[in-house]
Amino acid sequence: MRKLFVIGIGAGDPDQITVQAIKAMNQVDVYFVIGKGAEKQELVDLRTAILDEHMRRPYRIVEVPDPPRDRTPDDYQGVVDDWHDRRAQVLQELFAETDGAGAILVWGDPSLYDSTLRTVERVLARGELSFDYDVIPGITSVQALAAQHRIVLNRIGEPVHITTGRQLRAEPVPDALVMLDSECSFTGVAGNDVHIWWGAYLGMPDETLIEGPLREVEAEIQRVRAELRGRKGWIMDTYLLRSGGA
Amino acid sequence: MRKLFVIGIGAGDPDQITVQAIKAMNQVDVYFVIGKGAEKQELVDLRTAILDEHMRRPYRIVEVPDPPRDRTPDDYQGVVDDWHDRRAQVLQELFAETDGAGAILVWGDPSLYDSTLRTVERVLARGELSFDYDVIPGITSVQALAAQHRIVLNRIGEPVHITTGRQLRAEPVPDALVMLDSECSFTGVAGNDVHIWWGAYLGMPDETLIEGPLREVEAEIQRVRAELRGRKGWIMDTYLLRSGGA
Ligand SMILES: C[S@@+](CC[C@H](N)C(=O)[O-])C[C@H]1O[C@@H](n2cnc3c(N)ncnc32)[C@H](O)[C@@H]1O
Ligand SMILES: C[S@@+](CC[C@H](N)C(=O)[O-])C[C@H]1O[C@@H](n2cnc3c(N)ncnc32)[C@H](O)[C@@H]1O
Repeated sequence: MRKLFVIGIGAGDPDQITVQAIKAMNQVDVYFVIGKGAEKQELVDLRTAILDEHMRRPYRIVEVPDPPRDRTPDDYQGVVDDWHDRRAQVLQELFAETDGAGAILVWGDPSLYDSTLRTVERVLARGELSFDYDVIPGITSVQALAAQHRIVLNRIGEPVHITTGRQLRAEPVPDALVMLDSECSFTGVAGNDVHIWWGAYLGMPDETLIEGPLREVEAEIQRVRAELRGRKGWIMDTYLLRSGGA
Repeated sequence: MRKLFVIGIGAGDPDQITVQAIKAMNQVDVYFVIGKGAEKQELVDLRTAILDEHMRRPYRIVEVPDPPRDRTPDDYQGVVDDWHDRRAQVLQELFAETDGAGAILVWGDPSLYDSTLRTVERVLARGELSFDYDVIPGITSVQALAAQHRIVLNRIGEPVHITTGRQLRAEPVPDALVMLDSECSFTGVAGNDVHIWWGAYLGMPDETLIEGPLREVEAEIQRVRAELRGRKGWIMDTYLLRSGGA
């Protein structure tokens, strides 16, 4: 039976990889890299460094080029769906041509805001190639944020709400863990007792942390974020908002 | 400067420990074990196995006994608060007597429904002992659940709501990741299109997974859970609920 691993490798710190991930990597013959064109060079280099450090057997890297995509379609959902299907087809063809076990490395954890598992399920749903697959969890950027600020994500007995910048803009709640926010959407959250713990490039050499009452530090975060983003050309950041103070 | 590590060691699978955790462990002289009396022997053995496998230097284990606690007080909040303070004091005294670096190992990740960081912050807030401390993230039971079921926790672009059994009973929402539920609170969630992915003893030899439409599998989960719990004397389980089907 053909075998595929989907392996979480942490969100930036190469030491935030598990023993389980390293053991899985050492069963892999071929790594599939999906949509490499869009990746930042620093992340590509980080992945290469992780492979160099932990692989104890020969392996190949096969790029799965993203099919072209109409970015301003009339039927947005239909086009995205079709694009995902074609991507699954490309992965399937490359996997079918491959001898041995395959793997896809995923930033953070495959279960959080990542499309890899959906792509793999699409390949299986096509019914043309059968294989076994295992998912290996990885440390998420959420956990890296909490660890660096040394905070607990939940208040005692209370829920943890993980959401996106877009959702926060639609519904600016004061208690949330926010990812995928390119617009500093925390500025839209009302209240004078909201605290923020913010982190960018977590686990990487440029890691930057800011923490404080939202109304006191929001302008600083906006300024620092714009400056970092301008200097490096890209940014990844995430933050926890909590009402009622620190 | 005195040094303390709070280290996440994963939720059950000893391989779900990170390289960062192993490196931190190898700087530790003394492990503090808080409230060991209440711990299940299987978890104590698992922790011992993790130490045996990864420690490359001599170390000691010091138990931090939990102070006695009035479990049916009139002033519940005040008593809990006082109890936490006394626990912090015990930890402080033991840490003060210790030479070298200390550590506390935490199940899963220290940022999720765990009181260790609050205890450490209380020690610092007392202002009598100063030390540096680092938090090392670990794979949570939530991630173990998602990996074993090979699921993504969020719908595309949608939030992830992590909550407790108690909260779910108070507000039975059909989209939630539920922990700390000793009462199969999923049975209180209405709707015929809710799907459940359930897991007990994740990463351990008795790992048990059940998945399906909630209305079709809820009775089975209740039965299996009661049976496992009866046989082993304890259980830890967690589950994802999602409306709209699988
Ligand atoms: C497509 S999601 C992938 C999340 C990933 N699967 C995880 O487990 O963290 C990308 C978002 O994760 C967050 N993120 C990922 N890595 C990060 C890092 N090193 N520092 C800060 N935020 C990060 C940012 O919010 C970014 O917009
Ligand atoms: C006090 S909380 C600690 C959570 C932990 N810090 C984590 O990151 O997973 C304990 C709850 O976590 C969940 N849990 C922890 N370990 C588990 C396991 N191995 N299998 C299933 N659920 C687990 C259960 O819901 C349990 O009630």
